[in-house]
Amino acid sequence: MTTPKQSAGTGAIKPELLGGFRDLLPAEALMTQKVVDIARRVYESFGFVPLETPAMENRRVLLGDATNFNKSIFLSRIVRGIEDKDIEGGNWDQDYALRFDLTVPLARVISAYPDLPKPFKRYQIGKVWRGERPQAGRYREFSQFDFDIIGSNSILADIEVIQIMYETMKALGTLNFLIRFNTRKILNGLAEVVGCLDKSNEVFRIIDKLDKIGLAGVKSELQRQPDNELDDSALAMSDEKADKVIKFLQIKGETSQMVLSQLKEFFGESTGLGQVGLKELEEISQALIYLKIPQENWRVDLSVARGLDYYTGPVFETTLTDIPEIGSVFSGGRFDGLTNRFMPGSNIAGVGASIGVDRLIVALQKLNLFDQTDSITDVLVTVFSPELQNQSLDMVQELRRQGFNVELYLGEDYTFRAQFSYAAKKSIPFVVIIGPEEVKNGKVQLKDMKARKQEPLTKEECFANLKSSLGK
Amino acid sequence: MTTPKQSAGTGAIKPELLGGFRDLLPAEALMTQKVVDIARRVYESFGFVPLETPAMENRRVLLGDATNFNKSIFLSRIVRGIEDKDIEGGNWDQDYALRFDLTVPLARVISAYPDLPKPFKRYQIGKVWRGERPQAGRYREFSQFDFDIIGSNSILADIEVIQIMYETMKALGTLNFLIRFNTRKILNGLAEVVGCLDKSNEVFRIIDKLDKIGLAGVKSELQRQPDNELDDSALAMSDEKADKVIKFLQIKGETSQMVLSQLKEFFGESTGLGQVGLKELEEISQALIYLKIPQENWRVDLSVARGLDYYTGPVFETTLTDIPEIGSVFSGGRFDGLTNRFMPGSNIAGVGASIGVDRLIVALQKLNLFDQTDSITDVLVTVFSPELQNQSLDMVQELRRQGFNVELYLGEDYTFRAQFSYAAKKSIPFVVIIGPEEVKNGKVQLKDMKARKQEPLTKEECFANLKSSLGK
Repeated sequence: MTTPKQSAGTGAIKPELLGGFRDLLPAEALMTQKVVDIARRVYESFGFVPLETPAMENRRVLLGDATNFNKSIFLSRIVRGIEDKDIEGGNWDQDYALRFDLTVPLARVISAYPDLPKPFKRYQIGKVWRGERPQAGRYREFSQFDFDIIGSNSILADIEVIQIMYETMKALGTLNFLIRFNTRKILNGLAEVVGCLDKSNEVFRIIDKLDKIGLAGVKSELQRQPDNELDDSALAMSDEKADKVIKFLQIKGETSQMVLSQLKEFFGESTGLGQVGLKELEEISQALIYLKIPQENWRVDLSVARGLDYYTGPVFETTLTDIPEIGSVFSGGRFDGLTNRFMPGSNIAGVGASIGVDRLIVALQKLNLFDQTDSITDVLVTVFSPELQNQSLDMVQELRRQGFNVELYLGEDYTFRAQFSYAAKKSIPFVVIIGPEEVKNGKVQLKDMKARKQEPLTKEECFANLKSSLGK
Repeated sequence: MTTPKQSAGTGAIKPELLGGFRDLLPAEALMTQKVVDIARRVYESFGFVPLETPAMENRRVLLGDATNFNKSIFLSRIVRGIEDKDIEGGNWDQDYALRFDLTVPLARVISAYPDLPKPFKRYQIGKVWRGERPQAGRYREFSQFDFDIIGSNSILADIEVIQIMYETMKALGTLNFLIRFNTRKILNGLAEVVGCLDKSNEVFRIIDKLDKIGLAGVKSELQRQPDNELDDSALAMSDEKADKVIKFLQIKGETSQMVLSQLKEFFGESTGLGQVGLKELEEISQALIYLKIPQENWRVDLSVARGLDYYTGPVFETTLTDIPEIGSVFSGGRFDGLTNRFMPGSNIAGVGASIGVDRLIVALQKLNLFDQTDSITDVLVTVFSPELQNQSLDMVQELRRQGFNVELYLGEDYTFRAQFSYAAKKSIPFVVIIGPEEVKNGKVQLKDMKARKQEPLTKEECFANLKSSLGK
């Protein structure tokens, strides 16, 4: 790699990040890795295998033929030997777009490799990029860890997704969490009952504002009359129908049975989408009870909606109940038909969920559920002097073969003070010292940094001591 | 996530990749993950911790104030609601540049967080992007897995880098490999001896062409006279000096001792950079011998040069001796001073190496050193009928608790034929069948797909059988 030629006389460049981007320094990177390793083990135990797709895709693959879309994305071009005029007005290649999720690339893969055996169960960890305005806790680059089942219409697949979400959250430690789910079909059933199936997205848009505008606000928006002849978004709902929606929004319960019996009453004798959705929620709930997934960890919640023109069946969210304000850390749903952009009419079924890795890490930090440690080194071996470095090299190699993470001191200041200070700064729990005295006696000094004590031991005693102290 | 609105009447979009990009389907992604896991374990055993930096950095951070550089990079901009005119002539943000390596971002981190304890030992796995013309085996996006020691001038750090390269290659399996190393100082010593230290890059440029133009070609280029008054690249070397360079290029040997003794003779009584480099190579060689790193796995090789205006001391390359044509799979060197762009005069020492993950995977595939398997599922549990699905759900959960990777059959075709065919396609070695007969007897059928035999077992017998068959 050749470094670029510098223009003469320029000052230092600020070592700054772009707005909306961030570094994960070792403590955070270690936590992230731990979460990913745990989730990966769970996903693999359900038979999921990894897939990697490029960071960049053709713009049409990601966005279709849209020229008008309501998200901000990154487009790229290739340049060589920049002149400022190239940047301003240059001939940008319009094809390179950075992915904004891992689901559209998955749909491309499914379409491009029709021979992949189905159901295809894959997981993917990866960065995604969105050009949105950075806010506290909202970045332009973040990690997602998705798992999806492609090609199964079975309700068993939806049940499995919830099971995996539960097992993953459980494996992450002593977290209090609640998986809330609903199905798009119930919401469509509601729109049907009030005769608005053709304008269902408008109904959902208003319902989604419940937290902000309250029941009265929702009712008034449902009843809004058109402003003019071209205003086709106004629902102009009758009082009776608007009340029906309000009644639906008041269905709540601690257990799924409570919610489901009210829902059953709500849809009553009507046949249609509501009944289909009700059956879905019942089947899922029964299976979760049968699987003995604790009822404190899941609930049917009719307010769970998620990106509605994307999902077609069950939708899932996971809240950390000790820190609900952070939002859902693990969400997903059924999205049948995502391959239709590439294979019109293919209508391939898909269901899955995704961990918002960065958000989860922030939550774990706030809950003090992870060590803030930025080192994984068990032992530092000091170097007494260049003449005795071989003895230290030996000891490092032997300790490593015993399964410890070991550092040889690599500084140039050979004073004990400097070497201990390095161990202290990095919170390395043990230090091994080999000086001329130890070489003569065939021993080493083992220093316990926390207990501040030090004793001469044979190498074998030293290994045994470390093994029991470190629990290895 | 909202899907973009489609323009009316457009046809299907091709599910194609951009040129120079590729997917890692499960078999390749599993192999990649295996390599990364193995290397990570070795890096961690030497006390390295992870770091993550963004895919995009400020252009000036990556390239300095260069307007003229000899690599092609990706610049990005944020768009929302694309119109074609925006793409062609729009107001691109010139700041967003995709990283082309992990070393410059590391230098930024070192400069931005001066409190990181030093020596700072970090590893980073990540994608990098280069806008070069795609060729066979050369992509515009590839993975690097770097480890670096920042802030140590000690030769022990250089030795440790070779040790880590050796341990990693060893841990990857039964590979024949050769780590070849040299030091920039020897090459500077050569330039000094022939009185060209001020034009050393020109000397190296010519030497680098040895493979293509041979010794005679090198000699003639070293002796080339200037074409005109402005031609300051011509070295116009005397016959005696050019012969000296040729003599240097002929130094070779099976063992480091052979190379070092010839080098000693070459530099003779001269004092200067050559002696410094010689001492470096001697110290490294002695330590590797002392550490009993087999001499068949490493060698001093004076033809190893690498990106010369980047490195300042030892440089390392790793060749797979059964497939040398693929090039170095694990390379690095000492690069003191990389932080100078951000902190002029800081001159912080750095040394490390990087696995070319994709190239290594290609090599392992060619050497048949990895399974081509695209599944990690141990057992498929069939579903006899929707009425008996709970029995299957139970069995899946129990098998998973026993530590197996288990899939529940999620297809809608409940025939045995369809279920066995799924297991066969995914090379799942065992299938568990629970039909009405088995439910009645409290047993399950365990089918060994490879042996094509099937037997009724109690659940406990089934677990035991699987454990011994799968070696879990």
